[in-house]
Amino acid sequence: MYEIQFGVPMSGAILNCINTRLDARTVSVLLRHCEPKLLFVDTLSQSLALEAISLFPPNKSPPLLVLIQDDQDDAGGSNSSLSTVDSRFCCTYESLVEKGNPNFKWIRPKSEWSPIVLNYTSGTTSSPKGVVHSHRGIFTMTVDSLIDWEVPKQPVYLWTLPMFHANGWSFTWGMAAIGGTNVCVRKFDASTVYSLIKKHGVTHMCGAPVVLNMLSNSPEIKPLPNPVQILTAGAPPPAAVLSRTESLGFVVSHGYGLTETGGLVVSCAWKREWNKLPATERARLKARQGVRTIGMTEADVVDPESGLSVKRDGSTLGEIVLRGASVMLGYLKDPNATNKCMKENGWFYTGDVGVMHSDGYMEIKDRSKDVIISGGENLSSVEVESVLYNHPAINEAAVVARPDEYWGETPCAFVSLKNELTQKPSEQDIIQYCRAKLPHYMVPKTVVFKEELPKTSTGKIQKFALRDMAKAMGPSSSSSRLSRM
Amino acid sequence: MYEIQFGVPMSGAILNCINTRLDARTVSVLLRHCEPKLLFVDTLSQSLALEAISLFPPNKSPPLLVLIQDDQDDAGGSNSSLSTVDSRFCCTYESLVEKGNPNFKWIRPKSEWSPIVLNYTSGTTSSPKGVVHSHRGIFTMTVDSLIDWEVPKQPVYLWTLPMFHANGWSFTWGMAAIGGTNVCVRKFDASTVYSLIKKHGVTHMCGAPVVLNMLSNSPEIKPLPNPVQILTAGAPPPAAVLSRTESLGFVVSHGYGLTETGGLVVSCAWKREWNKLPATERARLKARQGVRTIGMTEADVVDPESGLSVKRDGSTLGEIVLRGASVMLGYLKDPNATNKCMKENGWFYTGDVGVMHSDGYMEIKDRSKDVIISGGENLSSVEVESVLYNHPAINEAAVVARPDEYWGETPCAFVSLKNELTQKPSEQDIIQYCRAKLPHYMVPKTVVFKEELPKTSTGKIQKFALRDMAKAMGPSSSSSRLSRM
Repeated sequence: MYEIQFGVPMSGAILNCINTRLDARTVSVLLRHCEPKLLFVDTLSQSLALEAISLFPPNKSPPLLVLIQDDQDDAGGSNSSLSTVDSRFCCTYESLVEKGNPNFKWIRPKSEWSPIVLNYTSGTTSSPKGVVHSHRGIFTMTVDSLIDWEVPKQPVYLWTLPMFHANGWSFTWGMAAIGGTNVCVRKFDASTVYSLIKKHGVTHMCGAPVVLNMLSNSPEIKPLPNPVQILTAGAPPPAAVLSRTESLGFVVSHGYGLTETGGLVVSCAWKREWNKLPATERARLKARQGVRTIGMTEADVVDPESGLSVKRDGSTLGEIVLRGASVMLGYLKDPNATNKCMKENGWFYTGDVGVMHSDGYMEIKDRSKDVIISGGENLSSVEVESVLYNHPAINEAAVVARPDEYWGETPCAFVSLKNELTQKPSEQDIIQYCRAKLPHYMVPKTVVFKEELPKTSTGKIQKFALRDMAKAMGPSSSSSRLSRM
Repeated sequence: MYEIQFGVPMSGAILNCINTRLDARTVSVLLRHCEPKLLFVDTLSQSLALEAISLFPPNKSPPLLVLIQDDQDDAGGSNSSLSTVDSRFCCTYESLVEKGNPNFKWIRPKSEWSPIVLNYTSGTTSSPKGVVHSHRGIFTMTVDSLIDWEVPKQPVYLWTLPMFHANGWSFTWGMAAIGGTNVCVRKFDASTVYSLIKKHGVTHMCGAPVVLNMLSNSPEIKPLPNPVQILTAGAPPPAAVLSRTESLGFVVSHGYGLTETGGLVVSCAWKREWNKLPATERARLKARQGVRTIGMTEADVVDPESGLSVKRDGSTLGEIVLRGASVMLGYLKDPNATNKCMKENGWFYTGDVGVMHSDGYMEIKDRSKDVIISGGENLSSVEVESVLYNHPAINEAAVVARPDEYWGETPCAFVSLKNELTQKPSEQDIIQYCRAKLPHYMVPKTVVFKEELPKTSTGKIQKFALRDMAKAMGPSSSSSRLSRM
């Protein structure tokens, strides 16, 4: 997987890393959409790939399949394992490489604007779209991230962020640029991460806030042999999770980006003087997405109607818009979707809702679709979630709209509880807890307890699934009219 | 000076920082060559600027002059000092800024290829040429250097490298990009540097090897409160100077670039395993210029006739050639000079002579004009200088060609001795010292003792001046025929 990030573009082809956690039907849809000639399949994903291919209609020719065999599979002798290769694969990766011409001259892109990579969005809010990036955009993103995260040369990088997620925010290429060591994992839990950190002297890793939560909520926490830099993004990290993770010796950096930007383009640039503040205040500041990185030209929060910047008051909601070198070329075969978000002068409309603080740091309040409109008030589900995450019994929380005949929508909270609890809170306990900390209209009217919240393959909570569940519950009770007062 | 690096390009104009150590005649020539509309003059350079302007012919209109007053000049009350402004200045910098429109919209360059800066070469080998760089080239150079030197955010940077020297290798912009603190100095000696490091907690500084020599040879050496990163380039640093500097707690990085590349584009990328080697071996490795930075496309050493790469044997001499994003647009008003060095496919011929080692690290052996050709053998003056720098009594050394009737040229060494010596070596002592360490044909036939060697404003030894002195001495004696054996 790592080698392919280089070999495919150097051969003049376009790279597309498919999320191996998707179901066969979706993989099949993506393959028919982007029409690859060659599909490299890891041993662990054999059945997924073969099933996806079997769903091709007879008039569509599938890609040639190349099997990537794990070193460990070969332990019993390469001949015997080679003989087990399914005949639907044309060859193994190793045999393909062996047959290669060592004097092959890399094929240069026709222009720096030529595409290098196609990445499908993870689809938190809609069906996957194929994001196409140019060589130039990816180069800029790669160097930008190295500077912004202050990565020194020869880091030891643990791949807790999947490479199929926007090429690991472009760190696949970034690690090579500075002579990094890549510690690759197929699957991991907190115990694996702690032991790999110790074994390899890991210095850097990335992950969605769910990874921070996993590391800091685990019973298997081990002392870190050295401070480990961890870069998080993908969802606003709850302040409580930030505090807990940092107390373990992780140094958390926080940024913001989208598949459409190739990596993180807004960064919570940390000021040294903030280290003197109390932990909760530090966490509050660090939960903000921040300021543009130097690879970006502009980042702003604008009124979607007028296109003008919102007030820098930390409360006026607007849409986050970005302009700069690493914004995608567009969506593959989808000019409508492209035109909808790519506006004049190179502005990219993210669909994310945020505020601008007085110091110029932006903070996401919600995805557009995640805003709850209750009695005409726009209500940020993320703010409610922050409060829930501070509750000592709550492991994960997500708030979505539940239809309400009177208010239009009311906030409905889905939560999972920590494992080691002696006493579990009730729905009313949690509602009371929120009442003490939030304006009444923001307090969840419903609390649903779940063993685990549904997630995308990249660890983001699937709000659309929760939204469906909330809808299926029917309108919330009329008592909500009173609780609004 | 620092503010102007930003204000001038943002106003849509092109920046040109003039070397304040030049003489009035040269400054006048440069001004008439680049025809600025506005000239900002620091208080300390008033007489230089006014004299340069006075040398303008009547038909050439000089630029408007703006006086930059030092904060310290204003200590006695700004009114009184303002009244002393020479009437040839149109205003002071502060009054110009005060009259400015705070709502002024920065003027965007028409294209990323539009020029941002003009820098005259320091002229070690020829008359100054005006190097023009684009916005795009400078941006790439700036981020490239931050990554290559691994500069973390919020560094404290001491300006021992003048800003007029290729905009401090583009670190004027680089420091702003990462929130650095700039500690500016007009003049400095070892004592000033050591006290500024302590006072401001300096973490980073740059300088030619002459600065390293100054810091490590000074009687005023003070222990460093923290390790200080020092980036050196501009001339091959003698291994002895590198060893001495590092033993004091400076962490020396070494790179290579030219005014024509906007900063350092070849870097002696340090491998962690080299730290285990003995100090002399470490210094030998670090004295090599290294490998291309990630902002460059290619860097090579080629046979100037065939254009083909030389053998990677560490001894075959060739010309250093570069290709990549930060190579200049060209020389101002000098298409001949531009065409001479800018070749097909974007290759820039540096005029520097080097070798390629087997590990792909390049090493400069000489400027083309500094190669001494003795009896048909190309002889690298830098190699002879490395030996001289190891002599315990020698402070600085430079070797140039002296005409010889029989051999064509012979090596002639100019040296300055350390101050605190009880016994000074003789010419014969030094020649004997070199005989023990060099092939006979490389041993200097002449050694000239100087109080100080002539230098350019950026601290490079002016070999052309020494070459003139060597020529003026007349042909070396015939005894050299025998010593060649």
